[in-house]
Amino acid sequence: MQQWIIRSQNIPPLNKEWYLKAQQRLDQQTRPQRSLGRLEDAMAKFVAIQQKERPQLEKKRILIFAGDHGVEKEGVSLYPREVTKAMVLNFINGGATINALARQISAEVKVIDVGVDGDLPGHDSLVQAKIGRGTKNFKIEPAMSEEELDKALGVGWRMVEESKNEKFDILALGEMGIANTTAASAVIAGCLKVSPFLVTGRGTGVDDKGLRHKIEVIEESIKRHAAYLDSPLRILQYVGGYEIAAMTGAILACAHFFLPVVLDGVVVSAAALCAFQLNPVVLDYVFVGHESEERAHRFVLEKFDQKPLLRLSMRLGEASGAALAIGILEAGVHIYNEVATFEEARVANKKESESYSH
Amino acid sequence: MQQWIIRSQNIPPLNKEWYLKAQQRLDQQTRPQRSLGRLEDAMAKFVAIQQKERPQLEKKRILIFAGDHGVEKEGVSLYPREVTKAMVLNFINGGATINALARQISAEVKVIDVGVDGDLPGHDSLVQAKIGRGTKNFKIEPAMSEEELDKALGVGWRMVEESKNEKFDILALGEMGIANTTAASAVIAGCLKVSPFLVTGRGTGVDDKGLRHKIEVIEESIKRHAAYLDSPLRILQYVGGYEIAAMTGAILACAHFFLPVVLDGVVVSAAALCAFQLNPVVLDYVFVGHESEERAHRFVLEKFDQKPLLRLSMRLGEASGAALAIGILEAGVHIYNEVATFEEARVANKKESESYSH
Repeated sequence: MQQWIIRSQNIPPLNKEWYLKAQQRLDQQTRPQRSLGRLEDAMAKFVAIQQKERPQLEKKRILIFAGDHGVEKEGVSLYPREVTKAMVLNFINGGATINALARQISAEVKVIDVGVDGDLPGHDSLVQAKIGRGTKNFKIEPAMSEEELDKALGVGWRMVEESKNEKFDILALGEMGIANTTAASAVIAGCLKVSPFLVTGRGTGVDDKGLRHKIEVIEESIKRHAAYLDSPLRILQYVGGYEIAAMTGAILACAHFFLPVVLDGVVVSAAALCAFQLNPVVLDYVFVGHESEERAHRFVLEKFDQKPLLRLSMRLGEASGAALAIGILEAGVHIYNEVATFEEARVANKKESESYSH
Repeated sequence: MQQWIIRSQNIPPLNKEWYLKAQQRLDQQTRPQRSLGRLEDAMAKFVAIQQKERPQLEKKRILIFAGDHGVEKEGVSLYPREVTKAMVLNFINGGATINALARQISAEVKVIDVGVDGDLPGHDSLVQAKIGRGTKNFKIEPAMSEEELDKALGVGWRMVEESKNEKFDILALGEMGIANTTAASAVIAGCLKVSPFLVTGRGTGVDDKGLRHKIEVIEESIKRHAAYLDSPLRILQYVGGYEIAAMTGAILACAHFFLPVVLDGVVVSAAALCAFQLNPVVLDYVFVGHESEERAHRFVLEKFDQKPLLRLSMRLGEASGAALAIGILEAGVHIYNEVATFEEARVANKKESESYSH
């Protein structure tokens, strides 16, 4: 796992000159200064990552990492395990929510099977990278071996590297895996060292009894592995999931390759939290797409000190919030590239300026 | 003004059957129930307004009402009055922020001159409907006459009626007018009967001293006209503006003609507040696009008991927040029309269902 620590340490912080240059251009455009609020912050960040005079946001790819979870056997989800495979088929057939959102923003959807318990057909939209047929039940044993963790991180990294080579301008991360909010909450509780009670939610919609049970399962799992949960990578290995680990690898790669990446909900945030704990600078390359209804998500975003672009009480996953947020970022890029400056439009700027021009 | 009161009373509430029908369809789609949160609420509302099996959101129009304000003479804005005209030229030349946003969502921008102090050239994107060359300075006298108010309301109504006839699926409302956050705050203070101090913000960005001065101007104006500020229409007449009144007329018309309308920031919300006080049911036809940084906006949204689709600390106006929000609604329409049901996709639904199908 040493290579992942090394990789995470070699990420440079956001380029300040480009950030300031972008702010300057935004300030010169025909509107009161900073009147687009956080949209301007997002734009300056985007420009500083991409480092182009005129930023580009045309080629968009949505990476959905899918995997099953041994802990599903504990009855922590409202849906049966088979739904993971069925939803992957739904994704590649274009019938899911994320497909509708992807069509709207002209994004490509790529599903990466890192651990679905079931055979999947060959398909252009599907990357076969199965590490196992679901993780082990982490209430009883580690979710995966060190070797499997390494593989999962590598799949995520590779997907980003390929996307960079294929000249994608932005990535959105999402996931599918029945029971993966249980794994995500366990990872978050482990990383932040807080009680699972505080960071466990209803996932797909379990009732009060289901929620109590889910919390107990996570508490017991963390207790069992406590001695080993001393680093984000170990936490991923012991109570994570293949798709969560793959997304951690993907986020590290996005920072490494200067590829803007939009996060989705709580499960993606668990992956991001691990990357963040390896090196907080990864956040310089990350956009928080939305804030999910899952309570753990707010905890993580507070830790990140980042505000989401959207807050619509969504809790779906499958990159839905990230895809919606790409629409907002794209609007920002249009503004950045197309709006006239005070000089170009001959609009009088503030009164302080005697000539009424900038 | 009697006709406006009559018109406002004849608005039916949102169609409940269509709302429930829409919710039902959303519930049958392949994702956990209600997992899209407020996006689903917005979709059900949109369907209930439009009353189509498959809602349509293709033809979009952005109406920007522009007018000058006599109260600008009191030095309440950071920008000189000429900027209103200059920005209108910028809009019709396609160089402003709203134009970039409109291009992204393929919306038409229509600027309606209801009171710009200056001559404007003929242009396809410009509707000449000048009522005066700016309102009167309401610190000294009523902003407009009763006849002018009637005209302004009528312009707004007519723009919506025409848009309905031209088969537009949605409208966004926005405005331009130097000093119009002063008028908006005066209208809001008048309607809600709260101190101007509570509902006055920095507009385009005045400093502390400027803000204190702005508040004083509004306080004095409200004091002067207090005896007449007994109805939303009177408030519009005495301390409003041409573009604010026009938008009140537009919102009433959107409800009347069942045309979904997206509100922008604080100035539009002042217009909506007047419509709301004439008849609260208008809100059934309204989407709150975003929450502006202007403090008065939150006051109004709380009164409306409505949450915004976006919260990005924007404070620009010119329909920018409304246009961004149309992108969100359009995503919702794609989802509503395109996502497979559990049955279609043969995805197992919740465990309760024995057959694992819906």
